[in-house]
Order: sequence, then C-alpha cells, then structure tokens
Amino acid sequence: MINGENLIPVAIPWAMVGGGRQSQIGYIHRSAALRDGVFKLVAGAFDIDAQRGHDFGVAIGVNAERCYADYKTMFAAEALRQDGIRAVSIATPNGTHFAISKAALEAGQHVVCEKPLCFTTAEAEELRALATTKNKVVGVTYGYAGHQLIEQAREMIAADELGEIRIVQMQFAHGFHNEAVEAANPATKWRVDPKMAGPSYVLGDIGTHPLYLSEVMLPQLKIQRLMCSRQSFVKSRAPLEDNAFTIMEYDNGAVGYVWSCAVNAGSMHGQKIRVIGSKASIEWWDERPNQMTFEVQGKPLQVLERGMGYLHPRALADDRIGGGHPEGLFEAWSNLYVRYAQAMAASDRGDKAALAELHYPGIEAGIEGVRWVENCVRSADAGATWVDYR
Amino acid sequence: MINGENLIPVAIPWAMVGGGRQSQIGYIHRSAALRDGVFKLVAGAFDIDAQRGHDFGVAIGVNAERCYADYKTMFAAEALRQDGIRAVSIATPNGTHFAISKAALEAGQHVVCEKPLCFTTAEAEELRALATTKNKVVGVTYGYAGHQLIEQAREMIAADELGEIRIVQMQFAHGFHNEAVEAANPATKWRVDPKMAGPSYVLGDIGTHPLYLSEVMLPQLKIQRLMCSRQSFVKSRAPLEDNAFTIMEYDNGAVGYVWSCAVNAGSMHGQKIRVIGSKASIEWWDERPNQMTFEVQGKPLQVLERGMGYLHPRALADDRIGGGHPEGLFEAWSNLYVRYAQAMAASDRGDKAALAELHYPGIEAGIEGVRWVENCVRSADAGATWVDYR
Amino acid sequence: MINGENLIPVAIPWAMVGGGRQSQIGYIHRSAALRDGVFKLVAGAFDIDAQRGHDFGVAIGVNAERCYADYKTMFAAEALRQDGIRAVSIATPNGTHFAISKAALEAGQHVVCEKPLCFTTAEAEELRALATTKNKVVGVTYGYAGHQLIEQAREMIAADELGEIRIVQMQFAHGFHNEAVEAANPATKWRVDPKMAGPSYVLGDIGTHPLYLSEVMLPQLKIQRLMCSRQSFVKSRAPLEDNAFTIMEYDNGAVGYVWSCAVNAGSMHGQKIRVIGSKASIEWWDERPNQMTFEVQGKPLQVLERGMGYLHPRALADDRIGGGHPEGLFEAWSNLYVRYAQAMAASDRGDKAALAELHYPGIEAGIEGVRWVENCVRSADAGATWVDYR
Amino acid sequence: MINGENLIPVAIPWAMVGGGRQSQIGYIHRSAALRDGVFKLVAGAFDIDAQRGHDFGVAIGVNAERCYADYKTMFAAEALRQDGIRAVSIATPNGTHFAISKAALEAGQHVVCEKPLCFTTAEAEELRALATTKNKVVGVTYGYAGHQLIEQAREMIAADELGEIRIVQMQFAHGFHNEAVEAANPATKWRVDPKMAGPSYVLGDIGTHPLYLSEVMLPQLKIQRLMCSRQSFVKSRAPLEDNAFTIMEYDNGAVGYVWSCAVNAGSMHGQKIRVIGSKASIEWWDERPNQMTFEVQGKPLQVLERGMGYLHPRALADDRIGGGHPEGLFEAWSNLYVRYAQAMAASDRGDKAALAELHYPGIEAGIEGVRWVENCVRSADAGATWVDYR
Repeated sequence: MINGENLIPVAIPWAMVGGGRQSQIGYIHRSAALRDGVFKLVAGAFDIDAQRGHDFGVAIGVNAERCYADYKTMFAAEALRQDGIRAVSIATPNGTHFAISKAALEAGQHVVCEKPLCFTTAEAEELRALATTKNKVVGVTYGYAGHQLIEQAREMIAADELGEIRIVQMQFAHGFHNEAVEAANPATKWRVDPKMAGPSYVLGDIGTHPLYLSEVMLPQLKIQRLMCSRQSFVKSRAPLEDNAFTIMEYDNGAVGYVWSCAVNAGSMHGQKIRVIGSKASIEWWDERPNQMTFEVQGKPLQVLERGMGYLHPRALADDRIGGGHPEGLFEAWSNLYVRYAQAMAASDRGDKAALAELHYPGIEAGIEGVRWVENCVRSADAGATWVDYR
Repeated sequence: MINGENLIPVAIPWAMVGGGRQSQIGYIHRSAALRDGVFKLVAGAFDIDAQRGHDFGVAIGVNAERCYADYKTMFAAEALRQDGIRAVSIATPNGTHFAISKAALEAGQHVVCEKPLCFTTAEAEELRALATTKNKVVGVTYGYAGHQLIEQAREMIAADELGEIRIVQMQFAHGFHNEAVEAANPATKWRVDPKMAGPSYVLGDIGTHPLYLSEVMLPQLKIQRLMCSRQSFVKSRAPLEDNAFTIMEYDNGAVGYVWSCAVNAGSMHGQKIRVIGSKASIEWWDERPNQMTFEVQGKPLQVLERGMGYLHPRALADDRIGGGHPEGLFEAWSNLYVRYAQAMAASDRGDKAALAELHYPGIEAGIEGVRWVENCVRSADAGATWVDYR
Repeated sequence: MINGENLIPVAIPWAMVGGGRQSQIGYIHRSAALRDGVFKLVAGAFDIDAQRGHDFGVAIGVNAERCYADYKTMFAAEALRQDGIRAVSIATPNGTHFAISKAALEAGQHVVCEKPLCFTTAEAEELRALATTKNKVVGVTYGYAGHQLIEQAREMIAADELGEIRIVQMQFAHGFHNEAVEAANPATKWRVDPKMAGPSYVLGDIGTHPLYLSEVMLPQLKIQRLMCSRQSFVKSRAPLEDNAFTIMEYDNGAVGYVWSCAVNAGSMHGQKIRVIGSKASIEWWDERPNQMTFEVQGKPLQVLERGMGYLHPRALADDRIGGGHPEGLFEAWSNLYVRYAQAMAASDRGDKAALAELHYPGIEAGIEGVRWVENCVRSADAGATWVDYR
Repeated sequence: MINGENLIPVAIPWAMVGGGRQSQIGYIHRSAALRDGVFKLVAGAFDIDAQRGHDFGVAIGVNAERCYADYKTMFAAEALRQDGIRAVSIATPNGTHFAISKAALEAGQHVVCEKPLCFTTAEAEELRALATTKNKVVGVTYGYAGHQLIEQAREMIAADELGEIRIVQMQFAHGFHNEAVEAANPATKWRVDPKMAGPSYVLGDIGTHPLYLSEVMLPQLKIQRLMCSRQSFVKSRAPLEDNAFTIMEYDNGAVGYVWSCAVNAGSMHGQKIRVIGSKASIEWWDERPNQMTFEVQGKPLQVLERGMGYLHPRALADDRIGGGHPEGLFEAWSNLYVRYAQAMAASDRGDKAALAELHYPGIEAGIEGVRWVENCVRSADAGATWVDYR
C-alpha cells in the first residue's frame, strides 16, 4: 500500500505548460503529480495569456520569477538554474502537443503529455527518436489506465484465466455533446476544430482511452486491419465526427470493436472494456472503477473488488485505502504519475532493470493512439472500408 | 389489466407441429397460448417420431385420435372435422418452417411460426402472397417483443421524447456456446448445420431478436445499407458464424449496430437495445425486463418500472400483476399469443379496423428477419464490405 | 425441467371462493393452478355479489350451474356430485379466511388459503387439528417461496456453505401506501380495517412473506423472544400500523430483523432477505428473483443465476425456460400449486413417503405467520418491549 | 469547482499526532489536508515509538527537529516558534483522544480528531467548554460526510422535496471481522479492547458514521428515546459487540434504525442511508458515492450523479473533476479538511459570518457520537430496553 513514504528518493522538480486557471485537467495533473511527493511544482508557463498564467502560478504557490510567459522562455531559463526543472507536463490544446513535446525533449526534459501526443504517426516517431537520443521518458496521460483493476485484468489474462482471446469490446460513449455545446463553451470549441484537434474528434479524444486499456491488458495483440464508420450528428462538427464505430481484426484471429461517441444522450461516461476469451470474460467500467466482473462460462459471475487480498500483488501495490472504500480517478492519475517519476528516476540513473519492470502509457502508447486514429480516419474517409493497419 | 376474462369471445382450436417431449420451446408456446383462454390445444403432430409424438400428445391431454403422425395428415384430417383446428404453431427445426407454413396456409390455417420463417426473402414473400390470398394471419415468435416496456419505448419514441433518432445499439450476446456443445447436445446440433439452420447461426438465431425490437420501437426506420463481419470461433461451425458485428445505415442518417454472439463467455443472455436520440436515450435489457432506463441529457437518469401508472396505456394494457412483482418471458409470450388470437379473430370476421390497431410480429417481421440475415451474409461473404440493403 | 407432462396423473377438480372480477390475486391463483394441468377449474363462489360472481364464472369458462352464490352452497352441492371438487382456493378478505377454511375442511376439501390463515394462533391450531382429522392438505400462499433460488438457498445452508448462522435480515418495504390511498381504493380499504384485516396491517400483510422465506431457508431456527415497534404514519390507519421494526432472538444465539413497511416512498416492492453466517452470506431480492448473491468473506461476490447447471437439483427441478430467460412471480406461484397438487394426490393415496419429500407453505406456515403477528402486536402494544415468543 | 487556487489565503502550519508508518488513516489525513494547499505539514509526533516516528516524519519530508518524541513535547516546542503549528490532527487509538485533544486545545491549537472524540459525554462537553474558551475549532473526521451528494441530500430535504420525514434507515455493516482477525492484526486488536476502544466496538467505530450523515441531512431531528440490542458473535470480543441493532424515536414522530455490524460476511462496506419522507425518499451508499437515488412515490426512480449541473450549488462547489469521472473517499476527506481550514481561518480572524456559513463535523458532532454510543450501551446493558435519550 502507498502511505506517502519512499516512492522515489527525491521529488523531481517539475513544471507545467498550460493547465491554468480555466483548466480542470491542469488541476488533475497537479493533484496527481504532487499527491505522494514524487514531483515538486517549481515552475510553469500556465497560460497562453502570460499575465493570467503568471497570476495563476503565484496563486498556487510557484515563485513569481519561475512563472514564465511561454514554454520556450521557461525551458531556456530553467536550463540555466542549478535547481532547474527536470520534467514538464503539457496540458495544452492538441495542436500544440508536438511542438512543445519536441522543444521539451530538446531541452533535456522528461515529458508528460496529454493525449494525443501529436497528429501523425510520423511526428510521433520523430518524438520517439528524439526521446531515445536524449534518453528521456515520455508519458502520455491515458489516466484511466492507472486504475488498479486494469492491472488485475492484465495479470489474469497473462495467467491464461480467460483462455484464448477472441473478442475485445470497447466503448467510450458519453452524451455531454449531444448538442453544439461548443458554441458556448471555449473548453469544448477547440475539440471540434480540425486545426486544434487534429483529424478526428471522438476517435482521438475518447476512443483511444479504452483502446489503450486493451493494450495494457493484451500486450501481445496486434491490429491487422480495421474499418471505421464515422458520423457528425451535430452537423457543424463535420468533417470531425461525434460518433464512430470501429471494427478491428487482430493477428491472432480475434476481433475488436470500439464505439466512440459524444452524443450518447444521457450517458454519463460510458467507458467500458470487455475482454472475451474461450473460457471466461472480464469487464470493467470506469464509472465503477473499484469493481471488475469475472465471468467463467458455466459458473456464477464474480465481482472482484479493488483492495482485496485475493488480487494480484501488482493490483494491490497501488492501494491507498483498502477494499470497500472507493478510490476515484484522482488515484488512478496519481498511480501513473508515480510510475512516471519512478521511470524518470530510473532513466536518470541508467537503471534498465527497473525500467523494464515498469509499464505505463509512454511513447509507444502515444504512437499507437495516433496511428489508430490515422487508420480509422483513412478507413472512414474511404467510405468505411477495410484498411490494412500500418 | 388482464384477469382472464374476455380477451376473445371463443377460444381458437389450435394445434402444434413439433414442440414435443424434448422441446422446451414447445412448452413455452403452449404456456403462452393456453394462458388466458385464447387458444385451446386440440390436436398436434408433436414429433418427427410419430409414436413418441402420439404418446406425448396424450400425456398433455390431447385426444389420441387427434395426435397425428405428421403435419400433412393433420391438416387433411382436421379439415374434415366440424370442430377442426383453425390455427397451428410450428416449432420444428428451421429448415422445415417454410414447407410447413406453406402447407398450413394452403390448408386454410392461421399460422404461428418460430423464426426464421424461412431461409430466403423469396420464400418469405411467397408466404406473404399466400397468406394474403388465403386471408390468414401469420405470426412469427419474436417472443421478447411481448414485454410491456417495449410498447412503452415505442410510444415514447412516437411522442418524440427522444428527439431525432441517431443511433440504435443492439446486442444479443450470450456465452452458452463458447465450446462445441453441439457435439453432445442434439438440441443445439441443428443450429450449426447449414442444412437445418440456413445460411447463418447467430445472425438469424439471436441477432434478429433485438433487430425486431428495433422495428417495433422505430417503425419508420429503414436500413439503406449494411456491412457485416462474422467469425466462427469454434472452428467446426464454419461456415456458420458464432459471432457477428453488423453496422447499418438508415435512410434518415441514423446508424445502427448489432452484436450477435454465442461465445460471449459467462454472459447469461445479453440481449439489449439502446435507442439514442438528439435529446434522450432509452435502454432495455431482457434479463431485467421489468425496468427500462430513460436518460434525458442533462437530467438524472430515470428507471421506468413495468406496471406503474405513469406508463402509456398500451404498456399497461397487458399487465397481469401490478408494479413491483416481476413478470418474466412467459408473460411476454402470452401477450403475443393474445394478440395473435385477436388478430385471427379479427381476420376471420373481416374486422379491418381491429387489425389495424393490432401490432405483433407477423409476416412482415418474418420477411424482414430473413432479409436482414441474407444481407448480412452477403456482406460477410464478400469480405465484410458494405452492401445495399435489398 | 417442467414441460407440461406428468406432474400429477389426473388434474384435481378445483374451485375458488372469491377471486372474482376485481381481484387480481384471483387471476394469479388461477394462472398458477391451471398452468401445468395440475388443477381443473370446475366450480366457484367467486364474489360476495352472487350475480356478479356467476357472470364472472361463466365468463372464464365455468359451467353456469357450478357458479354458486356462496361457499356454503357450493360445498353442499359439490359434495353430491360424482365429479365434485376435491380442492378449493380461498381468496377473500382476511376476516373470512378462518370460517371458510373450516367449512371447506369439514366438507372434506383440500384447502389453499391466502395468508393470513386466520387471526389467532388458537384458530390456526383448530384448523390444523381439523385438517389432521380429515386427512386434508392445507396450503397457504406465501407465493414468493416458489421462486427457485429460495430452494437453492435452503440447500446451501443445509450443506453448511454459510457456516454458523448469525443474522437474518428481512424486509418487505414498499411505498405504494404512503398516502391514505385506501380512501379511494376498496381493494386497499379492508387491509387497514381491523375487522377485516385482523390485528395488524403490514406485519401480517407483508412482513410474514420474508419471514416465511426465512423458515424455508432455515428450518431449524426457532424464535425465542422478540420486540416490535410499530407506527401509523398515515394517522387514519391507527391502531393498525403502516411501518414496523421487529427484532428477534433465535434459540441458537442468532438474531433476526424484519422491516415491514407500506410507506417506503418510491420503493417498488422491497422484499429482501439476507442470511449471514460465520463464513458467508446469501441475499435474495424478489424484484430480481432470477439472481441470488453468495458472498464468502474474503472472496469475490458471486451471482447465482436461476436455471444454471451449477445449482442444486431441487433448484433446477422447477425450471421451465433455462438460464438467462427471466421467470417471474407467476412461475413461483405455479411451482407452489404444483406442490399443492402433488401433496393432495399423495395425501389421497396415503403416500406418506411422498408427503415427507414435499415441502411447501402449509398449515405450519399458516400457524407460524399468525403466531408471529400475535407476538409482534403484543410487544408493540406493550410499548415495544421484549416478549417471550409463544 | 476546486482547481487548487485560493481556498484559504495562507496554508495553515499543521502537525499530526499518530498516523505513522503502519497507519493507513494517517496517510488519508495527510492526503486530505495537503491536497489543495490548505494545510502545510511542518511537525509531528507520529508514533508511540519515538525513533520510528522520527524516521517516518523525516521520510515524508518533515524537518528532523520538528519530528517529536511525543505530543506534549511537540506542543511545548512549537509554542516557542514564530512559525509554530496552529493546528493538529490526532490519529491515535481511541483511548488517547481525550487527553491529546485537551492538551492541544490548552496549547492553543485548532484540533482535528479521529472519532470518537472521547468515551463519555461529560468528557466531550469538557472539550467543548475548553474549545469555546480558547476560541478554537474542533473537527471530528466523519470523513464520509465530505461526499458531495450528502450536501445535495441536505438541501433537498431542506427544500421539502421529501415531505414530512418519517423513517431514517442507516447501516454500516461490513464483513471483514467475521472471524477473530484481531488475534493476528494489531491494527484491529485495540478496537475490541475496552481499555483502548471505549464502551463499544461497532456502535462507536462504524455506527456513528451513518448517524452523522443523518445529522447533516436532517439537522432538526432529535432523538427522544432508543433501544439497542447488541451481540458478540466472535465470543472473545465480549463485552464489546460486533453486531448491534438500534431503533430510535425522534421528537417529531419519525423513527430511525441503525444496523452496525462487522460480521456481515462478504459485505465490502455496506454503509447506506435512506431517508423516507411522506412524498419521496433518497438513498445513498458509500461504495457508489457518485450516485444518489431519489424516489418520488408514483414516479420513476431517479439517479442523481455527482458533478452534474442540476445539483444544488453547495453540492457542486466541491467538485474537482466533473460528472462521469468518479471521485472517491479521498476527495470527501479533502472537502472536510478544506472546511476545517476555512473554519480555522475564519475563527482566527473572528469572522462569525463566515463560520455560520460553514458546516462540518465539529465538536457538536463529536459530542453527539459519544452520547449516542453511551445511550446505546445503556440500553443494551439493561437488556435491550428503551432508554430516554440524554
């Protein structure tokens, strides 16, 4: 269990780009990073409006001189300090992720970036090459992956408790954007503007979340081809979609399905993943993250609860409060940030064994998310036809 | 509420073809037909084994002389009786439905037939023509449609409580056939034999059920094109599928999705339908048929309960026991059989107004089920490509 | 599984007292009794209004001459017939149960009576003595007890799967009578009139239902003392209660709790029972009767489903439709009526071995329900103090 | 929404007594207090073992010189510092709460104490007098009360959405101590030792939690008399109970029920509260804290979700992440700590208006918890008889 001690020897000096006053995701990054003493917020370029960003930084306790007008200034200034930052989190609109991540890596920073990491696989691979050269960690915040029962699923599948994997059902299908709410809400507006959001809306914004959960649970599975049908039910969003169905064929003969939707009226969140094997299935829903069902054909359904002794040690390692008491999304993010910090520390000291033990949404996950959206869009734009995954 | 009185003036003399000793579905037909005095079981050709069928008929109270060796003999003999049967239910393997239905109609019988009505749209249309000529009712037992909250959904959608319809999510995805259970179980064996089962397994056997629910709820919606991807995870079932994904485009711009599956390990039944409009969604699950959720975007989710005064009169008309007390699938079937009897009586007396008021899974539903499977198979066999619906 | 054959050799000629046109419970009795050919409805005194009762009887298919004006006339007339009734079901207001049951037994009829069997333990014991003398079966329709998972619970407890029994939590707490609905609804009015309803409202009317479930599941447990606190939240109901808490001490050191309530606003039904042992608990809810939870301390919760092969044979014997397809309250009642018929047939042929194998809510259950209410009322009227159970 | 800014002007220098290495509750206190910059951990007497406490404090970032051997030393030393602590949280076994709280108040510290505040009402009132004299805030960590939907319930009841309150059903009934786990687990051992735990186990340890929720939701309701029946199913725990039923009569004619249990085998947590009014009921369960049901009699059940715009502003004020994304118990605790900090700041600046606006579990809640247990034990020890609440 986590009790606040010793997760890494020394807190990593850390900054944010974006994540200012109006940004709820910024608060989530900070809550996660600062939760267990693994990062220390010492600098930031929190806002596109420099003054507002400065004010905000001071308000949350950052020294005024380290509240920078923009990320370039910050990377340059911090590089000159003995106590300069060693890691940066990027919580800006999608269209800026690539440039900022690249600049951060070039400045020798470890990077944690909101997804999508960038817009094209080519860009993503360029970042990977740079991260390798610079020997830096890149994290991508697929935050739901930090929920502990995802680890449990991964271990159960690895232990062959499901049998041969046949079908992966995924969905992230909320209803909050059933109308053109972006007209009145700037926090939503950029998500449906191709310049800022990239080539897709719901595929990239939400569909990649359960997709990443499937990558954690099923690391061997490779997509061979897919087809994607997408719609813009709120007409003004075209060409970006607010609904998409994606069917995938994996290389082992299994099939997958992802429903990405922002117009599922009345649904709160609707992120679910069900993995179906020849013997049994598991299912997990992010609105009830403390429970996972395990269904062996011909046996009573079982409900596994977070924090219970019957779970795999990897699913228990991140527990903070014991079974029965619910943990929420903040704990999931905190778990990821702990792993980011541990990976950064391991990377800095060249500890490859420790790095090999850690798994977290990193540069490969970032690339895969971009690649999947690219393939989906390619299929959808070709009339929802099958495309080889590339 | 139904209390046993007056559903139709005189019980209709009725027979079964199939539905004998080993047939659980036969019991369901009889429970439904005889429940409220709308049919009277007076004859039968209950079994392919004539002696066994005879013994069974006698055991359940049919006069020995009216327990026939086969359906042809029965139709001929009953035609000569003053008190002969006027309706017949067919609960035999799929491959025999067409021939028996045709013979029954030619013999002037009203028909209730297990789905699928036949294997090709051409056959189905032939039966429709014959039924029209003979002025007979044909019912197809999509039994789940008799659940009362399906009526509620239909009325709410008609009253525009959901707004413009955008997405219809359907599934019937159980896990009972995750292994080759048909090897040991004759009741399953014919379902995966193309000669007996027709061109598909799960598409026709279970996928058509939620499809029909969507037809009841959304009578205006027409499929324009679809694509279907199907798999045989238990290899011995090929070319018949045990899993299929079907995506549909409707003529109003809405889209639909049907997941048909018999290898969803651990799932009990898994029949669900969710209709998503621009304002709200409804969702119904056949394992909890006494509840339906109604989700207006931006409002608390509501749970509608069968038998409550706030429901539409059409959803209350079939209630037998009041809210709180669960009804099950037998009541749903009974509701259908009551409508079949009422339709037959109305047809016999030439009461077109009464017929227009009644809706039930009839010949059009039978045709549509066959057509949908045909289109799905055509798509799947062409490499899961889009096909125009025809 | 039940398929309509052979449940008893010959259907028992049967009548009803009460259960006429306005009586939904009458419909439930008939649906249950006639479902599987175990009874044959041949006579009745269906209504306090003789003409209305006659009309109703004819409408549901009873010969006009056997639609009697009152129960006395019926018992006398039927006794003279070769094909006279051999069993009668009583579905009249509570205050008449004793007199009619007594008259029926004296007339040599088997009896099925709505609960409560009568108002005092003394009366109940008089009926038992009479039934013994006359060698007749008395059934009391605690209808929920026919749900199959109640059998499963009984067998699991008998097999010591729960360990030593410690706590039994029971409730039947609906909200339909949160206001004085009886002012407008005659079907409710008599329930809160002490002359017709007896010494209690919710204790007797609904609290005895989960109490009987506990008797089925835990046949060894004996109440040693209890205390009961009751309230009349709708003032006009006093002295009859619309809410009651009852705490019980059993002879083995276990404790029990029954919440009986008709003012639980918004609750549909709310009948639940949870049995807690030293190792595990089971819980069952009558609104989801096809599922039962089994919770072993330190293990994942399990959900047992009706109709599945892992259940005890006694829980499977009454299955009609297989797992996944929901059964409802009608099937539960049918199961009881099957057992009643089997017990009557066994009694008639003097088959004590068969009788010993059958369990159903009979005269002992009837007595126990009356006794429990008597003790609860005695405690409540003494200021909610403890009273020895007698 | 909370985004990390401005909750109070300056973080309050803060220490802990107890809450060291083996203490999960200590971690929860720190997570909550430090979450949003309202407290700053600068000192501590973390452990009864001084060296271990010192090591732990250093490990979590406290200056070595401010890691004290015991609380007395700490209060004395900190009083001499310019930057000394102004508030302390107490997370030690129950038997020490009174003495430490008293010492803290005498030293001029604001206090946050684990419940129970002490063992007798007399002690609790002494602390209240001292807190008044010293003008200090006392908080008691009924942490579940920080869940946002508790505020929603309070506001809905205040707005008369439930009608006249009739019944309050409460329970906290887990199964983790179904066996004598305390034999092997020191963290449990003191809970069943009267010297350390006080006069009760489950009544005080868990029953007071839903009791406090009822105080928040129903501030007007006053208990008039109660009766309590308690048992020690694990014999070695006697005289302390591991199960208790408490029935309460309130001064307005309403009744309440609390089930406190640690032997509810298989149950994870089981904390629930249901408030039943003449028109409607609300129900909340701490294992699904992001949902609350609202049931108006005669209408469909509604599910209210945390973070949605239809909630009362007070229920939204503490939101950190928006609807759909689950918050957990850590956020609830954080909300309480924010209110504690705001109350302390308001108290320090003599801002009575601000204090009047804040509600949180304070000294009155602490007194009431102790009083309730006292009355329950008095009743139970007198043979589970009714006692006037005093």
